[in-house]
Amino acid sequence: MSLQSIKYQRGSLEILDQLLLPVVSKYLTVRGVEDGWKVINKMQVRGAPAIAIVGCLSLAVEIYPEEFGSKKSLRQEIEGKLNYLVSARPTAVNMKISADELITLANELTKDDNVTVEDMKQRFLNATEAMLEKDIADNRAIGANGAKAILEHVAESASAAAAGPVRVLTHCNTGSLATAGYGTALGVVRHLSELGKLEHVYCTETRPYNQGARLTAYELVHEKLPATLVLDSMVAALLRVKNVAAVVVGADRVAANGDTANKIGTYQIAVVAKHHGVPFYVAAPLTSVDLQIPSGDHIIIEVRPDREMTHVGEHRIAAPGINCWNPAFDVTPASLVTGIITEHGVFKPSALKAEITKLLDL
Amino acid sequence: MSLQSIKYQRGSLEILDQLLLPVVSKYLTVRGVEDGWKVINKMQVRGAPAIAIVGCLSLAVEIYPEEFGSKKSLRQEIEGKLNYLVSARPTAVNMKISADELITLANELTKDDNVTVEDMKQRFLNATEAMLEKDIADNRAIGANGAKAILEHVAESASAAAAGPVRVLTHCNTGSLATAGYGTALGVVRHLSELGKLEHVYCTETRPYNQGARLTAYELVHEKLPATLVLDSMVAALLRVKNVAAVVVGADRVAANGDTANKIGTYQIAVVAKHHGVPFYVAAPLTSVDLQIPSGDHIIIEVRPDREMTHVGEHRIAAPGINCWNPAFDVTPASLVTGIITEHGVFKPSALKAEITKLLDL
Repeated sequence: MSLQSIKYQRGSLEILDQLLLPVVSKYLTVRGVEDGWKVINKMQVRGAPAIAIVGCLSLAVEIYPEEFGSKKSLRQEIEGKLNYLVSARPTAVNMKISADELITLANELTKDDNVTVEDMKQRFLNATEAMLEKDIADNRAIGANGAKAILEHVAESASAAAAGPVRVLTHCNTGSLATAGYGTALGVVRHLSELGKLEHVYCTETRPYNQGARLTAYELVHEKLPATLVLDSMVAALLRVKNVAAVVVGADRVAANGDTANKIGTYQIAVVAKHHGVPFYVAAPLTSVDLQIPSGDHIIIEVRPDREMTHVGEHRIAAPGINCWNPAFDVTPASLVTGIITEHGVFKPSALKAEITKLLDL
Repeated sequence: MSLQSIKYQRGSLEILDQLLLPVVSKYLTVRGVEDGWKVINKMQVRGAPAIAIVGCLSLAVEIYPEEFGSKKSLRQEIEGKLNYLVSARPTAVNMKISADELITLANELTKDDNVTVEDMKQRFLNATEAMLEKDIADNRAIGANGAKAILEHVAESASAAAAGPVRVLTHCNTGSLATAGYGTALGVVRHLSELGKLEHVYCTETRPYNQGARLTAYELVHEKLPATLVLDSMVAALLRVKNVAAVVVGADRVAANGDTANKIGTYQIAVVAKHHGVPFYVAAPLTSVDLQIPSGDHIIIEVRPDREMTHVGEHRIAAPGINCWNPAFDVTPASLVTGIITEHGVFKPSALKAEITKLLDL
């Protein structure tokens, strides 16, 4: 079973403290919104989907044992606390979107005279819990779709009809620690393993924050998957000698034409994969595809502080006085992307917009 | 003037302690062979040319004030102490080669009846000091040849006849801290700067030992060159947006066909340079070209301990239990190399063997 970064059952929530990883594995009990705000603010939980889900579930565990005199007081509680949670990491847009959805629901239920205050509480708890379940279900679908696409691609190019176990490479962390569970690109790796088709997974260190070395490697060790860490500089050497069948990475944002913004280093891996004839897949839920953005040229790249590059903790690793260039993301042009793996199927970048428009029209 | 990692005048030797860089800049006095052995063994000096030169010069400062009763006793002193110095880092082959050359010289002088004991001492000191001078002179020639080649390439592709200042990228450390002074690839950068033709130099961090962030960045800051540090994962993003005119790297070994073994990550940079149409140069003295090796396939790549990747100092940065792949070098195929910059000129990989054979025949 996948590493559980979020342990939830009605009335109880625990999260794995990511600040202590990979050296210490410790779960923190989140008893309510105050705790939820703190773990988000201190980055003990990270990853856009995970932040939104932990925030909403912290409200669910707080509301669960309480009794409310009126629907109006429940509605006020929901709205006030959710807006407070949004303030924990104002740039994490998923928390804001989820808060708005739940506030809209609370307003509708307040107006509906057929709904009692107890009904309203139950409906609110159900809606919150559905977010957790949907994220995991979407990731499982991404995992299955991606594994199938990779194996079919290998089978097509192999002389044998059926593909044997494969070696894959991933970048950054897109697993249980960034999502509600299972993961996007790492979900594809997990699904290959469940099918008995994972020979080996290579994960990159992912400087400057080392999410690959700290978090992905932690997940892979935890689940005893056959895995090896490589440095970001080693991808070309790896693809040259290790017979890697596919690269699969996550996405922060996919434009309508398939251009993909993701963790710095992704574009370089795509160039190197192309040079070696290795297919390059982007795994992302439909919510990460933004049809309003025509191409990657319109995605603004955040440039982060030098200190992320010059220090590891308090330890200086670069010469004092040197300038740094520290873009947090880069954009991989659609021409380097073999397929975009979503919960609804794997799409060629050129077909992405039409396919999603069709899905949304259904 | 270039950073001086080795300060020598007859009777006096100081080296910059590289273990303390980049945070502390401290010179160590090397009073003789005991000190020389220690600074090599403890890696306070590193880089194959620098090790050999510091070793031989440590013997020169020891012998300089001594008086010898006979040429035989001087010869014994030279042979014994040089063999001892070789034992400080047995894998550093340059020290062994230099020791053998000086021992051969000592034997010849001992046999020559026209040479007095004082003459022999002077000839030995001269020969030792000539190593330092030759390394710097060769590096200066490499710098001049490389700068000229890069500027000519830019002029050819530009509409203007003369090339303006250029931006270049380098990897690892190939500067004053790895050689006797000036440097190979970094010597090319220095020469561009001396010509007023260096707009900017980008240096890669160079994991796992961060020679770029620690040493190259230190040299660039010291000399106030316009410089920026990037991570190993950022090269593709950099070449896409920053109009870099050329990549120039060093070499551990160049095969007869131009295949080049160099610090891990070099091959990946060459692939990325090719994708972006950026010329890729290898700067190396003729002593690094091994015509006995027909191609890179015959170069054995050292795989180093996991700990270099999983720790920074005592600080663990990777999940406990993860496997690592840690090749120290990779091989860049000649097809990705625009030119090999030597002290005798810049050669296309395909012409390398014929050109060097011609030079050796002269």
